[in-house]
Amino acid sequence: MKKLTRRQFIERGGLATGVAAMAAPALADADGPPRKLGAPTRPYGERSRFEKSARNGGRQATGVLPSASRTPLQDSVGIITPSSLHFERHHSGVPDIDPGEHRLVIHGLVDRPLVLTMDDIRRLPSVSRIHFLECSGNGSGEWKPQPDSDAQRAHGMVSCSEWTGVPLSVVLREVGVQPAAKWLVAEGADAARMTRSVPLTKAMDDALLAYGQNGEALRPEQGYPLRLLLPGWEGNISIKWLARIKVVDTPYYTREETSKYTDFMPDGTARIFTFDMEAKSIITAPSGGQQLRAKGVHQITGVAWSGRGAIRRVDVSVDGGKTWKIAELQAPVLKKAFTRFRLDWQWDGSEATLLSRCTDDTGYVQPTRAALIATRGLASNYHNNGIQSWHVNADGTVRNGDV
Amino acid sequence: MKKLTRRQFIERGGLATGVAAMAAPALADADGPPRKLGAPTRPYGERSRFEKSARNGGRQATGVLPSASRTPLQDSVGIITPSSLHFERHHSGVPDIDPGEHRLVIHGLVDRPLVLTMDDIRRLPSVSRIHFLECSGNGSGEWKPQPDSDAQRAHGMVSCSEWTGVPLSVVLREVGVQPAAKWLVAEGADAARMTRSVPLTKAMDDALLAYGQNGEALRPEQGYPLRLLLPGWEGNISIKWLARIKVVDTPYYTREETSKYTDFMPDGTARIFTFDMEAKSIITAPSGGQQLRAKGVHQITGVAWSGRGAIRRVDVSVDGGKTWKIAELQAPVLKKAFTRFRLDWQWDGSEATLLSRCTDDTGYVQPTRAALIATRGLASNYHNNGIQSWHVNADGTVRNGDV
Repeated sequence: MKKLTRRQFIERGGLATGVAAMAAPALADADGPPRKLGAPTRPYGERSRFEKSARNGGRQATGVLPSASRTPLQDSVGIITPSSLHFERHHSGVPDIDPGEHRLVIHGLVDRPLVLTMDDIRRLPSVSRIHFLECSGNGSGEWKPQPDSDAQRAHGMVSCSEWTGVPLSVVLREVGVQPAAKWLVAEGADAARMTRSVPLTKAMDDALLAYGQNGEALRPEQGYPLRLLLPGWEGNISIKWLARIKVVDTPYYTREETSKYTDFMPDGTARIFTFDMEAKSIITAPSGGQQLRAKGVHQITGVAWSGRGAIRRVDVSVDGGKTWKIAELQAPVLKKAFTRFRLDWQWDGSEATLLSRCTDDTGYVQPTRAALIATRGLASNYHNNGIQSWHVNADGTVRNGDV
Repeated sequence: MKKLTRRQFIERGGLATGVAAMAAPALADADGPPRKLGAPTRPYGERSRFEKSARNGGRQATGVLPSASRTPLQDSVGIITPSSLHFERHHSGVPDIDPGEHRLVIHGLVDRPLVLTMDDIRRLPSVSRIHFLECSGNGSGEWKPQPDSDAQRAHGMVSCSEWTGVPLSVVLREVGVQPAAKWLVAEGADAARMTRSVPLTKAMDDALLAYGQNGEALRPEQGYPLRLLLPGWEGNISIKWLARIKVVDTPYYTREETSKYTDFMPDGTARIFTFDMEAKSIITAPSGGQQLRAKGVHQITGVAWSGRGAIRRVDVSVDGGKTWKIAELQAPVLKKAFTRFRLDWQWDGSEATLLSRCTDDTGYVQPTRAALIATRGLASNYHNNGIQSWHVNADGTVRNGDV
């Protein structure tokens, strides 16, 4: 498939709806119908009433508090996820916290314990970085592909935001971490008191005390007014509604790192503290539930990310993996962030199976689902970064693939 | 002022509120008070009820449709402006357009005129880019600094988004632009039929037919479902609710490029078609209306941008311009986009005057207001990119400066 010329895009794509025969109206045509005066300004804007894209909860038991929702990746463009559509996962609901009352306690194996207000935190040196956040359970329903899954249901527990906050290392240096310290334990202010153990090395590397998301305050479901952000690591450890950091000498083996968020292996052991989210990609369009309405050119696009660094390359196949082409990566390509990829595709109206496979800058290549299962078995829900396929039917409908 | 150590940040900043004497509660303390079950997931999220940051209209005549609003830059973090807080400017209100009914007509000096639906446009090759957008009237109230101006009122008609759309060059190549063509005229679907002339060179360079903003559809006040985006150029020419492009051989000298959006010069002539927004910066914190609540370290931060390329450097002064220090630039530093800058500052409790001065990668240096007035006089409202100053009083209050 050679690169199509621009001319071919529209002619072969069936877009050539000429207006030659139509009397093109004059510019600012005073003879045209009057148009209505529009709406005034608004203090805080909302989207058009015609836009219906929404988070949903995937499959969820009835009668319990809805505690997980997924980003509609199939509607996504670019690399930023709107905060209103960022996936959610909480274990006892979203608390309603007054930032004026919120405190962060830092204590344990430190020389000078501290209690910080949000005002204290906001005047400290800050940074902003674009990072993805992914639940380690993302894709858990796709160990066996569900025929009716769309991109949202299959892999929608990943989103990407510009986060702003104070490097945790700034505060840890201030409190004076003692030599015996090797870990910290972070605790949230939600009713679940979500608690996770974090290696001190990560805390001193790129961890943030984040209070900003996409240019404004964190959203409540993302930890307002303060969350821990551990870039590239499974989402659950980036403790939301962060209220306390205790510096300690050993992990605490909390519920969320033993009973949950570990990977059960075929030999009966468990992989624990599997923090890094490995490289993964998904084609967001065309994807399950969408419809190609005409033969011709369609842009294949999606997002790729790696918890270990930057995406180096994305390959796309339209024939179920027999042949691959290198997709274009949209700049800027940032570490531990979504990278948008694109490939122009000429659809001839026959069945096709679309795959994407990413490689990160450590050289790690996204595995097939089969390869992942061969190693890890099917006893674990977590850390499914296998290649996702979409099958295009001859009528243009798209459904989950079975590759 | 040498660089402060991290230790000094908090101790000298008065943040050293130790908890040594406080009985630190046990992790996941079962003896603590029970916490309430929080809120469930939501299909489309909203910000915390404690967050009140809002666009406002600055000074506006009463009795007319509010048609301009400004971004609260003083609350901004990072480089992305939330779409809900992107500045607004419209001339007959925000139309309510059904994207299923919307059409883009491309005609004039072309071989194959086209009518495109939104579905047609969405399947064409697209790109995403982070770009600022600034009204050429931004800062018009500050030719003579207003004592009560804050960052929003002074310079809030600038915002920055990740935009997604089809390069206009793709569509222009398809329709076959004829040799006589030198300009195009773009017209909006609002009642004002906002119309501007655009040089063909810009249209073929980096112009976009944009339908995405910060990961979702354009907001209504930003041109939903389709706008022209001419990166780096004065905002008014990026025609919103784009309905028609006519390819022509000469500019049309529309109202918005003659009566408005031109610069009246001291000699009675007018600068017309002054498209590029020159390099500009503003300190967003500390800024007018804010309050330093204690001596010690405060982060000075703001945004800089240039319509001609990337920001190369930002200098900050805390003594009214006598001495300057180089601020840190937050990566990624992108062309025609906000660049966040930061400088740690030790406030000793005496009066201070804060300035920022940016330099772009063409070598252009942001001028003082006085230098701008010396050249351009005071007859024009537009294109004020002079240096903004903020005065810190001894009591920590911050007001507009008079530099």
